[in-house]
Amino acid sequence: MLDEIREQPQALRRTLTSVAEPARRIAGECTARNIRLVILAARGTSDNAAVYAQYLFQYMNRLPVALATPSLFTLYGAAPRMDDALVIGISQSGEAPDVVQVLARARQRGAFTLALTNVRDSPLARSAEEVLACDAGPEYSVAATKTYTATCAALAVLASALPGGERLAAPLVSLPERVEEAIHLEPQIARDVARYVHAPECIVLGRAFQYSTAREMALKLEETCYLIATPFSTADFRHGPAALVERGLPVVVFAAPGPCLPDARELLAWLHDQRADTVVVSEDESLLERATTPIRLHTPEVAADVAELLSPIAYIAPGQLFAHYLALERGLDPDHPRGLTKVTRTR
Amino acid sequence: MLDEIREQPQALRRTLTSVAEPARRIAGECTARNIRLVILAARGTSDNAAVYAQYLFQYMNRLPVALATPSLFTLYGAAPRMDDALVIGISQSGEAPDVVQVLARARQRGAFTLALTNVRDSPLARSAEEVLACDAGPEYSVAATKTYTATCAALAVLASALPGGERLAAPLVSLPERVEEAIHLEPQIARDVARYVHAPECIVLGRAFQYSTAREMALKLEETCYLIATPFSTADFRHGPAALVERGLPVVVFAAPGPCLPDARELLAWLHDQRADTVVVSEDESLLERATTPIRLHTPEVAADVAELLSPIAYIAPGQLFAHYLALERGLDPDHPRGLTKVTRTR
Repeated sequence: MLDEIREQPQALRRTLTSVAEPARRIAGECTARNIRLVILAARGTSDNAAVYAQYLFQYMNRLPVALATPSLFTLYGAAPRMDDALVIGISQSGEAPDVVQVLARARQRGAFTLALTNVRDSPLARSAEEVLACDAGPEYSVAATKTYTATCAALAVLASALPGGERLAAPLVSLPERVEEAIHLEPQIARDVARYVHAPECIVLGRAFQYSTAREMALKLEETCYLIATPFSTADFRHGPAALVERGLPVVVFAAPGPCLPDARELLAWLHDQRADTVVVSEDESLLERATTPIRLHTPEVAADVAELLSPIAYIAPGQLFAHYLALERGLDPDHPRGLTKVTRTR
Repeated sequence: MLDEIREQPQALRRTLTSVAEPARRIAGECTARNIRLVILAARGTSDNAAVYAQYLFQYMNRLPVALATPSLFTLYGAAPRMDDALVIGISQSGEAPDVVQVLARARQRGAFTLALTNVRDSPLARSAEEVLACDAGPEYSVAATKTYTATCAALAVLASALPGGERLAAPLVSLPERVEEAIHLEPQIARDVARYVHAPECIVLGRAFQYSTAREMALKLEETCYLIATPFSTADFRHGPAALVERGLPVVVFAAPGPCLPDARELLAWLHDQRADTVVVSEDESLLERATTPIRLHTPEVAADVAELLSPIAYIAPGQLFAHYLALERGLDPDHPRGLTKVTRTR
C-alpha cells in the first residue's frame, strides 16, 4: 500500500498521457450524439471517484449526473431510460459483475457506454463501446490508492475535453507535481498518527469537491484501521450528525481554498468550542491554526478557481498516508485487511 | 418524538388524501412537458426520503434520477441544464435556504419545479411552481419522524400517478395499517434496546429500497443517542467496510422480502460466523432466526412485488422506536438533542 501511495505521481503521468487522446474522441462522440445526461455506476473506492465526477461534470460541463443504482439493474432487471446518456462504469479491476451488467444493459438500451478501468483486457472493458484505461500499473494492495487518484484524473481529463471544461486543461499538467508535494508530508503524518491510536471512531468532513475525499479517507480508515469513520458533507453534518460531537472526538476536515472556505472556517470555530480533536488538511492558515493536527498542503501555481477542482486528487494523499501509518501504529497490517480480497464480486 | 412516531398512521392517512389530487395534476403536467429526468434537492432526513425516491422513480417510472448537489447552486453559482427535468425540493419545514435556492434557480432555468414540504406557507412552497404538502401536522421533535414517512408516502403517490407507477395505487391504500402494525412493536423494542446501552458504535445495512431506511435509522441514532452509526448498502459494505466487523459489533439489517433477500441471507450467515450482534428487521423467518435481536414485521396482504416498494415506510418505524428508547436507556433526552435546532439553515 505504501509503495502504491508513493507511486502516484508517476502513475498519474501515465494516466494523463494514456487518456488524453481517447478522452478527446469520447468527448467528440458525446457532442455528436447530443449526450444530455451522465450516469455513473461504481462500487467502493470507484464510487467515491464517481462522487467526484458528479460535482465535476455538473459544474464544468453543466451535465446532470445520476449515480446508477446497480441493484435495480442486477436484482430487479429494471433500468431507467438512457437513450441520451453517457453511462460510465468504473472498476479498477474491470471485474465488478454488477458494474459490468449495468454497462451491458445500458448498451442494449442505446446509451453511449464507457468503461473506466485500470485493466484494458477486462469484462468491463469488453462490455462497453469505449474504454478509458488508467494505465496506473498493477495495483496489489487491497486498499486501492493509486487507482483512485488515476480514476479521478481520468474523469477530470474527460471533463476538460467536454464543452465547458477547457479551463481544466492547464492545471492538469502540473497535477503530478502537486500530488508529489502532498506525498512529501509522509514523515510528518507518520508521527502525527500516534495521537489517534486509541480513537474508537472518527468523523470525516468535506464539502462539494472535497466530499469525495472525505468518503475515500473514511473508507481507507475502515479498511486498514478497522476504525468506524463516518463521512459527511459539511452541510448534511449540520442537519443532525453534529449532535455526535463531544470533547476529544477526532474530526478530520478537508478544506481547499474556494467558495466552501467560509463554511469550513465557521465549522472549525464550532468544533474548537466543542473541544473536538481536529485533523485539518488545508492550504489555509486561518484553518490550520485552529487544528489539533494541522496537515499543510502547498498552494499550487495555477488559477485559484481551477486549483480547487483538482484539489481532491492531491488532498487524498495525506488521507491515504494517515490510514496506512495509523494501521501500523495500531499493530495492524494495512496490506492484508481482514475479510477482504482485492476484487469484490457483488451482484 | 414518541408521540409523533405513534401519530404516523393518522398522519399518513392525511398525507394520502391531501396529495392524491395534486399528484395527479403534477404527473399530467410531467407528461405534457415531456419530463425526462428527475432532480432531487434535500438535506438530512429529507435527503433520505430523496434516496428512497431515487429507487422508486428509476424502477417504477424509468426516469433517471439525479440527486442535486446544492453547494454547486448556492456556493458556486452553477447549475446543470435542467430544461426537461422535474426538480423536486424537499424540506419538512420549507425553510432550508439551500433547497429553496436550488428550486428558485431551477425555475429560472426552465425546469418544472415542485416543493415537497409539510408547511404550505413556506419559502420553499413559494419558490416552486407546484406544491405537494404532506399535511402530517406540526412536527415539534427535532428528530424528524412523521414528516419522513409522510414525505416518502407523498413521493410514492407521485410515482403511482406517473406513467408506469399504476401498480402502486392499491398497496398505498393499506399503508397506514401497515405502519400501525409496525408501531405495535413498541413494547418489545423498549425492552430490546437494553442490550445496546453500552455500544460505542454500530453499522446499519439495507439494500436497494431499504438503503434509505438504513440511512434514516443511522441518522436517528446519531441525533438522539449520539451513537456513531454508519449506514451502507449491503453491496458497498462488501467493498471495504466489511473489514470493520468483529465479535459483538452491533449490525442492524433491514431486509424486506424481494430480490434482495438472498443477498441478505448470505450476509447474515457471514455476520453470524463473525459473531456480530445483529438486529434484524424483517418478515422473513430464515433471517429472523439468525438474529441476535429479531424484530418481526407482518407481511401485508398485498402483492409481494409492490409490497416491497412501500416497505421502507413501515420498516423505519421500529428504527425510530429503537433510537428513541435507546436514547432514554442511555440517560439522554431524545426530544432535545444537543447542538441541534428544528430548522437547520445551511447554504
